[in-house]
Amino acid sequence: MSQAQVAGFRRALIDHGLLGETPIDGVYGFAAGFAEIADALSAVLRRAMADADEHLRFAAVMPRADLERIGYFRNFPQLLGSVHCFCGDEAEHRALLRAHDAAEPWAAALPPSDLVLIPAACYTVYPRLARRGAVPEAGHIVQVEATCFRREPSPDPVRAQNFHMHELVRVGRPEQALAFRDRWLERGQALFRSWGLTAEIQPADDPFFGRAAVVMARSQRDRALKFELVLPVSDDDRPTACASANYHLDNFGRALGLSQADGGVAHSACIGFGIERVVLALFRHHGFASARWPRAVRQALGLD
Amino acid sequence: MSQAQVAGFRRALIDHGLLGETPIDGVYGFAAGFAEIADALSAVLRRAMADADEHLRFAAVMPRADLERIGYFRNFPQLLGSVHCFCGDEAEHRALLRAHDAAEPWAAALPPSDLVLIPAACYTVYPRLARRGAVPEAGHIVQVEATCFRREPSPDPVRAQNFHMHELVRVGRPEQALAFRDRWLERGQALFRSWGLTAEIQPADDPFFGRAAVVMARSQRDRALKFELVLPVSDDDRPTACASANYHLDNFGRALGLSQADGGVAHSACIGFGIERVVLALFRHHGFASARWPRAVRQALGLD
Repeated sequence: MSQAQVAGFRRALIDHGLLGETPIDGVYGFAAGFAEIADALSAVLRRAMADADEHLRFAAVMPRADLERIGYFRNFPQLLGSVHCFCGDEAEHRALLRAHDAAEPWAAALPPSDLVLIPAACYTVYPRLARRGAVPEAGHIVQVEATCFRREPSPDPVRAQNFHMHELVRVGRPEQALAFRDRWLERGQALFRSWGLTAEIQPADDPFFGRAAVVMARSQRDRALKFELVLPVSDDDRPTACASANYHLDNFGRALGLSQADGGVAHSACIGFGIERVVLALFRHHGFASARWPRAVRQALGLD
Repeated sequence: MSQAQVAGFRRALIDHGLLGETPIDGVYGFAAGFAEIADALSAVLRRAMADADEHLRFAAVMPRADLERIGYFRNFPQLLGSVHCFCGDEAEHRALLRAHDAAEPWAAALPPSDLVLIPAACYTVYPRLARRGAVPEAGHIVQVEATCFRREPSPDPVRAQNFHMHELVRVGRPEQALAFRDRWLERGQALFRSWGLTAEIQPADDPFFGRAAVVMARSQRDRALKFELVLPVSDDDRPTACASANYHLDNFGRALGLSQADGGVAHSACIGFGIERVVLALFRHHGFASARWPRAVRQALGLD
């Protein structure tokens, strides 16, 4: 009974004072006991990724034009959060309020702004690097954190619409990118082990939109581009991807004009950890009272 | 020359590796040296506000219906970030892509979702409390953190579109709310002093939209509802509000049906700190190299 198990896990998180009640699936208020673990985990990941060439943190929005160039609207329109703003005058505001007060739809009149919600932390990085010019011979590694949004409302607490992602991004030659992806899959798995969690490496694909999805996803698997670190969290029968490591070939390089020092198109790879998912995995496997987690786990997370 | 001073401050932050370059005003990538101070400050505020009845952290979105009930679209439509999502089928996606590929506007076709960007951390709290029922006799205090959005693009780094806010919210009887506001204005000022910053308490008003703004703002000042803790940050001639403390009368209580145990309408007050603004104030007053800040400041921030 997976559905009952998911509902029970969510209820337990609320009852233990870790998540707030919410009227909208996948939009949570995290209580102090949850936030404390999220912060500890972020600190551990920052240290694990400390040999990056730079470290950036974003709030929640990024330039719409950057995401357009990346082709996000072609591949994942169903997941996008587009930021629309009112920029009218007083007459337009009066019209808006008349609709609002009559309980008629009014927000449809808001035009799109130059911003969208960040769907993955690493998307903020590639356009930024492309604007700087060619990638150095040794390549470039960026640690990046962001509040991300994906339109996937679900009662399952592992599938939030709004969440935090911690990534390490490698840009450079094909063999640099591929070696990085494979090395970090193992390092990622070892990190989970240090947190007392057994994560399995599984081939995966992205949730492309529409009929093309089948073809795109199969190609991703055939070329062994995407792997996830999965373990049971809310549902014993359907393990949750708590991290994923990807080799993008030269997709971002071509889309954004990101080139190598020698003039070739840059390749890229990344590993990303879903902060809330890892925290939920910790509560699931070690219990809802973090003070009683195994000593080695607490120490690995810097909690003791 | 205020404008040159603001531009110089922004340039210096980028040159010292604290802020990333950005193609959009007010949307920043924060580098590690900046994020480290932001985290230290958040930890200090969490401890300073630790006697709250509960502590919640939100990502970046909240229910649209809650913000509607609060009247945000009436008073501050120009600041709103409305989250719109694609929910069409393949045919609609093809139409969207045709417009996209022809460089025609396409995002206007996206309907509003049930989510908006959080404009102030405390707005997440009042509707949540109202859903729970009457406020207990002793009132209720909530510590709340959120990534906030306000549509105010500006080249001045103190005015970001997307930023973090740390608030303490008091709900209860009028005298409880007012006493809380006044006590926290002083505590806030003392906190700034502990960080080596001299913040002045100034009466203030909110940036209401349109012609009604003058009347609303004057009423706010006449009734002494809003005060800010201000100090020079990017511009010597125009001090920046780095925190604000507000008494809302029963505005939220009435709008949301939030009542007292005795049946009366609940009053509320809050104090909010703009995390990035305080961090910028620290860099402005103590220098761009945080390792060389005065020892007492570093200790107060838990950096040593």
